[in-house]
Amino acid sequence: MNETIIEGRNPVIEAIRAGKPIDKLYILDGCNDGPVATIKREAKKKDIFVKYVAKERLDQLSETGKHQGVIAYTAAYEYSELEDIFALAKKKEEAPFVIILDNIEDPHNLGAIIRTANLAGAHGVIIPKNRAVGLTATVAKASAGAINYTPVVRVTNIVRTIDELKKQGMWFVCADMDGTLMYDLDLKGSIGLVIGNEGEGVSRLVKENCDMIASIPMKGDIDSLNASVACGVLSYEIVRQRLK
Amino acid sequence: MNETIIEGRNPVIEAIRAGKPIDKLYILDGCNDGPVATIKREAKKKDIFVKYVAKERLDQLSETGKHQGVIAYTAAYEYSELEDIFALAKKKEEAPFVIILDNIEDPHNLGAIIRTANLAGAHGVIIPKNRAVGLTATVAKASAGAINYTPVVRVTNIVRTIDELKKQGMWFVCADMDGTLMYDLDLKGSIGLVIGNEGEGVSRLVKENCDMIASIPMKGDIDSLNASVACGVLSYEIVRQRLK
Repeated sequence: MNETIIEGRNPVIEAIRAGKPIDKLYILDGCNDGPVATIKREAKKKDIFVKYVAKERLDQLSETGKHQGVIAYTAAYEYSELEDIFALAKKKEEAPFVIILDNIEDPHNLGAIIRTANLAGAHGVIIPKNRAVGLTATVAKASAGAINYTPVVRVTNIVRTIDELKKQGMWFVCADMDGTLMYDLDLKGSIGLVIGNEGEGVSRLVKENCDMIASIPMKGDIDSLNASVACGVLSYEIVRQRLK
Repeated sequence: MNETIIEGRNPVIEAIRAGKPIDKLYILDGCNDGPVATIKREAKKKDIFVKYVAKERLDQLSETGKHQGVIAYTAAYEYSELEDIFALAKKKEEAPFVIILDNIEDPHNLGAIIRTANLAGAHGVIIPKNRAVGLTATVAKASAGAINYTPVVRVTNIVRTIDELKKQGMWFVCADMDGTLMYDLDLKGSIGLVIGNEGEGVSRLVKENCDMIASIPMKGDIDSLNASVACGVLSYEIVRQRLK
């Protein structure tokens, strides 16, 4: 499936109401007439991220030239549900291993992480609905096909999802500098690995809700690894411990 | 230092003769008059990679509009020498740990790998002169500053460099699917980690010259990890073994 661009007021309202997975919604800044107000209201209900932009930007994005002040992008790929992740773990008779992304913004990173999740045997990837990149065509390409096998689930609130999954017996570990050396943690059970945003790392609330903080040994002069590399290193520490 | 574009016959000849590190040289396809033939000859002597392109492509790349059929890009950052890598290892009183890239093409991957090299305590990165990305501004940005600390060396022939370093007591391990599980290899001594091209992996000749082939456990449906993620996972297996 390809990323689709939907232009114009009625087509966008219909798409939102039909429940199409919308990754990004561009609305003309300052525009507030009836139909546009309806779109804003519907978008809010469905937690769709709205970006307010100038007319020039919309003209640039438009393929038809008839955007009427609104352009929506639907996801290139379908999202899965949380149940799909646990069904996959059950089918493989393995303890669930989930990767949770706390606002990854770079599509190449998201693609590389889905690829890593697939090969490290994670049963799914969870991303937030807002302020993060979705399943665009670039992400699909960077995932090298993994997007067709590994479920990706979008949730409204990462903290709430972590809380729910903790009640089902999962443990959560996030990556941060001030944690315990990853080799000294027990990462073998049902586990959720939380990877933070490229610039800011894991957000405070998410970190407070994790059971463990894992640190990758750092011997160098700079601060942190690339987010997809850090995810790879930690995922494979989980793989190593599970293999033992 | 920023990436610089040099346009026109005389400026390009001068830059090559002055020994400026040239990453890419674009020459008008089919053009063979005196000055251009001189540029080709000088480029060959210095192992500069030449790309023959149509006039439209040169017009597009040109910033001055006066390219005269030749455009060169110099590296955004200075390359180091092999000796710098070993001097750094000696200064830190550590067994040398070098990452060798067998034709990485994506600047984001090269940047992420230099970043990983810095944090995993590798003493330098070796890249080939031809058919690979050099130290461009994009690479520098993706390295998150690591390019200022970790020496990057460009060599003419990866196989010959591996051979020379083997004589100095280094061991080489490359990443490939048909190797020994990385946990079962001894990666503690003076080591060179070889990472292959994004699409084709490690080339046959390079692989034949390595002492060990390491495999990352793969549990998924697709073929391989992203090159910079694979480099991160293997580098940190080396870190783990060295910490023990």
